[in-house]
Amino acid sequence: MSEETRLARLEQRVQWLTDQLAISQLIASYGPLVDAGDADGVAALWAEDGEYDVEGWHMRSRDDVRAMVRSDSHQEIINGGSCHFLGPAHVTVDGDDAVAVCDSILVRRRNGGFEIDRAGASHFVLKRLPEGWRVLRRTTRLLNGGVQARGLLEAGVRGRPL
Amino acid sequence: MSEETRLARLEQRVQWLTDQLAISQLIASYGPLVDAGDADGVAALWAEDGEYDVEGWHMRSRDDVRAMVRSDSHQEIINGGSCHFLGPAHVTVDGDDAVAVCDSILVRRRNGGFEIDRAGASHFVLKRLPEGWRVLRRTTRLLNGGVQARGLLEAGVRGRPL
Amino acid sequence: MSEETRLARLEQRVQWLTDQLAISQLIASYGPLVDAGDADGVAALWAEDGEYDVEGWHMRSRDDVRAMVRSDSHQEIINGGSCHFLGPAHVTVDGDDAVAVCDSILVRRRNGGFEIDRAGASHFVLKRLPEGWRVLRRTTRLLNGGVQARGLLEAGVRGRPL
Repeated sequence: MSEETRLARLEQRVQWLTDQLAISQLIASYGPLVDAGDADGVAALWAEDGEYDVEGWHMRSRDDVRAMVRSDSHQEIINGGSCHFLGPAHVTVDGDDAVAVCDSILVRRRNGGFEIDRAGASHFVLKRLPEGWRVLRRTTRLLNGGVQARGLLEAGVRGRPL
Repeated sequence: MSEETRLARLEQRVQWLTDQLAISQLIASYGPLVDAGDADGVAALWAEDGEYDVEGWHMRSRDDVRAMVRSDSHQEIINGGSCHFLGPAHVTVDGDDAVAVCDSILVRRRNGGFEIDRAGASHFVLKRLPEGWRVLRRTTRLLNGGVQARGLLEAGVRGRPL
Repeated sequence: MSEETRLARLEQRVQWLTDQLAISQLIASYGPLVDAGDADGVAALWAEDGEYDVEGWHMRSRDDVRAMVRSDSHQEIINGGSCHFLGPAHVTVDGDDAVAVCDSILVRRRNGGFEIDRAGASHFVLKRLPEGWRVLRRTTRLLNGGVQARGLLEAGVRGRPL
């Protein structure tokens, strides 16, 4: 193989590794940002018109995501002590598009200890924008045995957008 | 250093990074697949004659793993709402062999909320096969204070097969 | 771009990816090592005079960290069955310095099941030493709704040392 071919191949693989890492890190920053109540930081993970569809709450822009973080219900959760704990994401990159999936639990301080309020599955559709990878659509469903969360998990691992 | 040497060194390091990522991603897909009830997807993480030894249940092939996912006891767990939540894996790659270790908790829907049924340590021995990295042997033990789980954790972090 | 420039750029990016991975893996090894009671292994994650400041316990050296693992209180926790479950770290590397942040929960065996005793935020300041990346200072605070944990999370995600 020529040096040129080897260089081009390396550049491609390093780009892919960098994309995988960028997306994993974006998802790993959601929990810390949302528990810190950093509304701008959370909103900036999404594209300007990105969506976050979570159990009856359908946000359709960065502004909507920002408003969720500032809402009374979210503020009550974080003021009482909360950990939005997301697991390691499984990420599938395809050029400028990507799909990721992870589990998450919401741990809340209660009765002197901590309890798990929710366990959910999250499916992410992401896009490479000029400013970097951003979430186009996150869909989160409770892991309650129903078909919705299962569909998210299966599509997510196989890299299929919803 | 010659360009040839630099290229060869880069190729080696990029291969190592790619292997680390592939194994982390394989392990990150277990929870989503097993909660989705995707028996074929779960089984495909193992080598054809791979083993999964978990608390009195010793599977010795992909067929055994597939049967576990389809078993009444697993179906009851996922139909009731479950999250097999695995933590970030620590991975040690050595050529075509690898060892990984991670913690996991099994979160189940119960009494209107979610409870942790089990917390365990998992030790993985993996092999690079023509189709990619696969699990040769996964050993999981309850974190109950006993020596077994501790041995798994220590061997896993140090990259020692069991 | 000349081959020389492309090579140099690849070397830089591969070094960055390697550093990111090394730090993620260092943090991913903490839980397994501390639950295994491997005092030397845990201590070796820190620099010789590294600090670990956790809720009223301020360790200031590897020896202090080793003593914590061997302490009666830690031994009681692990002998009863425990899982120090750390989430995926968000890592920011800047040359020979780095900052990382992650959530963690402490899961303990109790009443025949498992309960969450603590949910915390951890902020890490790390340094590249001749022997590899080591922790200079880890600061952990309970996620109890107070400003301390929130400050850790926000600084951590933005890559700011405390």
